[in-house]
Amino acid sequence: MNAEIISVGTELLLGNILNSNAQFLAQQFAELGIPHYFQTVVGDNPDRLKQAIRIASDRANLIVFTGGLGPTPDDLTTETIADFFSTPLIEKAEVVEDIAAKFAQRGRKMTDNNHKQALIPEGAEILYNAIGSAPGMIWQPRSDLTILTFPGVPTEMKYMWHEVAVPYLRQQGWGKEIIVSRTLRFWGISESALAEKVGTFFDSQNPTVAPYANYGEVKLRISAKSSSEPAAQDLIAPVEQQLREIAGIDYYGADEDSLASVVGELLKGHRSTLSVAESCTGGGLGQMLTRVSGSSEYFWGGIISYDNSVKENLLGVDPTAIATQGAVSAIVAEQMAMGVRSRLNTTWGISITGVAGPGGGTEEKPVGLVYIGLANAEGAVSQRYRFGDRGRDWVRQVSACSALDRLRRKLLSNA
Amino acid sequence: MNAEIISVGTELLLGNILNSNAQFLAQQFAELGIPHYFQTVVGDNPDRLKQAIRIASDRANLIVFTGGLGPTPDDLTTETIADFFSTPLIEKAEVVEDIAAKFAQRGRKMTDNNHKQALIPEGAEILYNAIGSAPGMIWQPRSDLTILTFPGVPTEMKYMWHEVAVPYLRQQGWGKEIIVSRTLRFWGISESALAEKVGTFFDSQNPTVAPYANYGEVKLRISAKSSSEPAAQDLIAPVEQQLREIAGIDYYGADEDSLASVVGELLKGHRSTLSVAESCTGGGLGQMLTRVSGSSEYFWGGIISYDNSVKENLLGVDPTAIATQGAVSAIVAEQMAMGVRSRLNTTWGISITGVAGPGGGTEEKPVGLVYIGLANAEGAVSQRYRFGDRGRDWVRQVSACSALDRLRRKLLSNA
Repeated sequence: MNAEIISVGTELLLGNILNSNAQFLAQQFAELGIPHYFQTVVGDNPDRLKQAIRIASDRANLIVFTGGLGPTPDDLTTETIADFFSTPLIEKAEVVEDIAAKFAQRGRKMTDNNHKQALIPEGAEILYNAIGSAPGMIWQPRSDLTILTFPGVPTEMKYMWHEVAVPYLRQQGWGKEIIVSRTLRFWGISESALAEKVGTFFDSQNPTVAPYANYGEVKLRISAKSSSEPAAQDLIAPVEQQLREIAGIDYYGADEDSLASVVGELLKGHRSTLSVAESCTGGGLGQMLTRVSGSSEYFWGGIISYDNSVKENLLGVDPTAIATQGAVSAIVAEQMAMGVRSRLNTTWGISITGVAGPGGGTEEKPVGLVYIGLANAEGAVSQRYRFGDRGRDWVRQVSACSALDRLRRKLLSNA
Repeated sequence: MNAEIISVGTELLLGNILNSNAQFLAQQFAELGIPHYFQTVVGDNPDRLKQAIRIASDRANLIVFTGGLGPTPDDLTTETIADFFSTPLIEKAEVVEDIAAKFAQRGRKMTDNNHKQALIPEGAEILYNAIGSAPGMIWQPRSDLTILTFPGVPTEMKYMWHEVAVPYLRQQGWGKEIIVSRTLRFWGISESALAEKVGTFFDSQNPTVAPYANYGEVKLRISAKSSSEPAAQDLIAPVEQQLREIAGIDYYGADEDSLASVVGELLKGHRSTLSVAESCTGGGLGQMLTRVSGSSEYFWGGIISYDNSVKENLLGVDPTAIATQGAVSAIVAEQMAMGVRSRLNTTWGISITGVAGPGGGTEEKPVGLVYIGLANAEGAVSQRYRFGDRGRDWVRQVSACSALDRLRRKLLSNA
């Protein structure tokens, strides 16, 4: 028993729209525990749509179509499916009435085009669309194959899925098993290094464990299949515990956690406050911290010291240090962190100064060289990072995350 | 001659990520005039990936794969393609060296896992990845079939596409009829209001004109099809001129322009400098300004005054104004703008103070209420915005853009 998605629409093939419907349906299949191995995108072309139907109907028991149910001549999904299974179309009187009533409600007249939307293959049932004019259908052209069609408009598709399709599928025996996932998040370790530590888990069948990486962050996704959510959670919990033990401090949070939210919780636990001094990130660290709703409890603000005059005048960085060591140096990072901490009167001060690129790199101080400073009542320390020349956005994003991670490790070691 | 996309990754089948790579490639095919009829998504499973390769290789001359090139055991794309075409894998020494060098640059050691990324089918060439460790390949397993593989990380995939794949494809004779597009960007006008002004252009055939809207920005995409780029540009130019004339000052730039880059050019033209005082955006405006490489020429920095104590102590905002009018008020916005301007000694000061939500809204000061202040030598003015309760990220992003747009209009009226 497995499902496939066929997304119909030339606008998808032209790249005019993102296929968010396929992502939604994929998530829904996962939650319902419906195996799902292939997705196909095809244009509004009957011959090629038939090819896609032939391939999918040979390997799946459930095919979900989105798109091509509208009133215009290029909306061909229903008639092409009927044609593929050599079944005549019949007009459903209740659909005509429903569309006419919806048009009347909005003070409009139904056009001849809309009659097309009332045609479905003989033997099929209407999949009612309460919020738009285009209904879908539920059809079993063969005893081992169920077809569901949905309009391409995401709001209508999602509404119909939840209200009509899910109850129908459950009644038909689909979705007896559910899949629950949990994402563990890591910072400060590469995907390959983490894989070497926890690689044996990748062979696990239930739950499965799979690694992902993006912008310096590494994630492990644990997915368990079971008949109920608590049972799935019971499968996940011991694996999560083992993975976290193996990873140690490189693990920082799960699911919706971010480095900023985790650092925020730690600061709240310590009743501590934070300020930031940013050079190459230009405000990105503050932006990250304040994405967290409620961050005003511990984040007081900061100074964006992009120009050296701001480093000197507002943060109190020694001009001689800039002249001799350069603005991207350990001493300047330390003085920036101390300066912002004392001027904003916070427990902690973090600073970032680096070469974000693409220009400005030298042999001695290449693009991607970043110093992060951390100050508290005891003084300031700094750390040097080499993030490489991987693009301005990348260097800035990874710098801000690394700064948060520095503070996270410090707060944990003090705990 | 036609192309297909095969997106490989169980995370796509689980709905964990949106298939934005397929949209990007689809747009690129459209721009290059490469016909493209099918897209397939398949998991990290060799048997099913082979099924997808069999189907695609029977109907396409160019197959572009994304995903499954990483160092972990579930990254199977390259070896499965080689296996399908019964071709042995060979290790490319230059790839091993390149990966080792990239790891060394970041102070890390290459792991055994990464050796896997240096394996490609005999006869294939490396599709170089300048910004990540996973290279792709260019391979013609049959004289009528070209295969390109890319990592799933969008930034790497796009970079490799533009830098390596497009020149290669053009050299091979793909993309003889080309589509050239130009995106005009507008701020301060709604999509429907702009559509009322320029709606007649939407019926145009060559070039076509289509509207898009996202996060408060409205765009018009002009696309012309022709045999050469200059000929396509000749079709676009008169339409662009008319659209810009109709839109007036709401038009701010085209293609890769951003409000931050356009404001930066205006500031440079006026030999003026800028500083920012941010409350609810928490650094997001500074981050936006400094995304522009070279922004240090006119952007000196700012003060993130998240806590009221920072507004008072570092920006000189009158505590009585905060007590009587509230931190989200016209007077506080104006004092913030004046304060940052004088403390950083810049020509202009911009400030943002508002209620980003989700909490903190009142009847009098609801979520989405934002004041933007603008100061120069003549003093400060402020403007009140009601962005609505559309999510914290939305309010913050639109606030920062609106602040830049305020300065843009001011700089243009002074020109």
